[in-house]
Amino acid sequence: MGNLVRTGLSLDGELLQKFDQAIAAKGYQNRSEAIRDMIRDQLVAEEIDKNKVVVGTLTIIYDHHRPNLTEKLVDAQHHAGGSVLAVTHVHLDHHNCLEVIIMKGRAGELKGLANGILSFRGVKHGQLVITSTGKHLE
Amino acid sequence: MGNLVRTGLSLDGELLQKFDQAIAAKGYQNRSEAIRDMIRDQLVAEEIDKNKVVVGTLTIIYDHHRPNLTEKLVDAQHHAGGSVLAVTHVHLDHHNCLEVIIMKGRAGELKGLANGILSFRGVKHGQLVITSTGKHLE
Amino acid sequence: MGNLVRTGLSLDGELLQKFDQAIAAKGYQNRSEAIRDMIRDQLVAEEIDKNKVVVGTLTIIYDHHRPNLTEKLVDAQHHAGGSVLAVTHVHLDHHNCLEVIIMKGRAGELKGLANGILSFRGVKHGQLVITSTGKHLE
Amino acid sequence: MGNLVRTGLSLDGELLQKFDQAIAAKGYQNRSEAIRDMIRDQLVAEEIDKNKVVVGTLTIIYDHHRPNLTEKLVDAQHHAGGSVLAVTHVHLDHHNCLEVIIMKGRAGELKGLANGILSFRGVKHGQLVITSTGKHLE
Repeated sequence: MGNLVRTGLSLDGELLQKFDQAIAAKGYQNRSEAIRDMIRDQLVAEEIDKNKVVVGTLTIIYDHHRPNLTEKLVDAQHHAGGSVLAVTHVHLDHHNCLEVIIMKGRAGELKGLANGILSFRGVKHGQLVITSTGKHLE
Repeated sequence: MGNLVRTGLSLDGELLQKFDQAIAAKGYQNRSEAIRDMIRDQLVAEEIDKNKVVVGTLTIIYDHHRPNLTEKLVDAQHHAGGSVLAVTHVHLDHHNCLEVIIMKGRAGELKGLANGILSFRGVKHGQLVITSTGKHLE
Repeated sequence: MGNLVRTGLSLDGELLQKFDQAIAAKGYQNRSEAIRDMIRDQLVAEEIDKNKVVVGTLTIIYDHHRPNLTEKLVDAQHHAGGSVLAVTHVHLDHHNCLEVIIMKGRAGELKGLANGILSFRGVKHGQLVITSTGKHLE
Repeated sequence: MGNLVRTGLSLDGELLQKFDQAIAAKGYQNRSEAIRDMIRDQLVAEEIDKNKVVVGTLTIIYDHHRPNLTEKLVDAQHHAGGSVLAVTHVHLDHHNCLEVIIMKGRAGELKGLANGILSFRGVKHGQLVITSTGKHLE
């Protein structure tokens, strides 16, 4: 945490009232925190655009009975170099596994690894989330 | 325009500095206007979620040589009742037309009309934008 | 229209049945057209990524009573060079105007122009849609 | 795995060629698998729309030095009933933690839990991914 700065903001009264209702419905307890979160969203989008080092999680659903798929998943993660930080696996039912692959690297590299894994036969669905390493998001 | 209200906001100094850079790059001349725009984005998303009366524009690209397509597009717009406000047409090249259909209505109705039009054979691509009527977005 | 090619596709029966239901609900009359549209979506995303010449429409809502805003909007469009093809204006109510600005150019240029306009004070909300010129989307 | 069905598809030759290039660049080894993935994407979107039981992962970045935040995170997850399946935690640096919370439940419930957690002070950024339980996505 760096130093806190206080800044003013002028807003139409009705707009402010509607905003307060909207953020209360989402669970925010004060306006500053909600606005901080909107600002962070914009800054994370910028980090991704500029191909900065970011953190990503790839969530996939796959059928572990598919021949060779498990090996191909492990291989892909190893060849990605040092970028895979951790993997969590959940057995959803007899056929379906969920796996969350937590990665760190340039935004472009993480997208490439994700695309490769999503293209494997037997990987039914998946989605990549890219967020910040948190370093510049106080 | 209603009454302007002044509110305070406490933010980490580094976060604020990065935010100021990001919005300057987008052309904003002051912080209040950038934050107002983020707030309006959230409120528009809420209007859509709650199926309020909104304004939408459907942009489509189509091949006007496709038999019967022009008639089908006109028909679909007429059957949509009073919801089509205006249509703009641009001839992109010998084959391809761009059409922007400006509509007003419940978010769900506009999506239904858009899906119908996008499913026509010969409509190559298109996208619906939903925004607010502006009434509650001072 | 180029030459039509016929290709085969093997799919799980249950997946195919669910897909047929989903596209019928959207108004598609046959499977080929729905799959063509999904393919075109991917290709348009690629054209944008590669900063190709594309077509875009910017939809904005603004308050035409805001001093100087109309002039600033006209100026911004003129300075954008030859990229604005057409503009449609709808009077939504006493205060609020909707304007659709139809543009052609590199994806990056269109985003820059859109960001500039969205940052103007009095422009309450807006969204940019980028689509293809249609040339490579038979 | 159910029964495989073979279906035909007619496409413009140039469109098909561009599609083949695009999917090869993403790592797909055949056209059927790429089209299956696009179909699954649409079906997952429909499951979410209809508030079916789905699987979600919430990725958050937070500062573990923030007083009481760890307790609040654990509390929120416990009060969410049986819906949290697993949590993975990675120490990114001295301040920043990444946490992935894997959940199962109605799409609406998962969004509610995610919104609550994202509103906590000290949670800097986060994003929810919703995917399918895989059961109807052969």
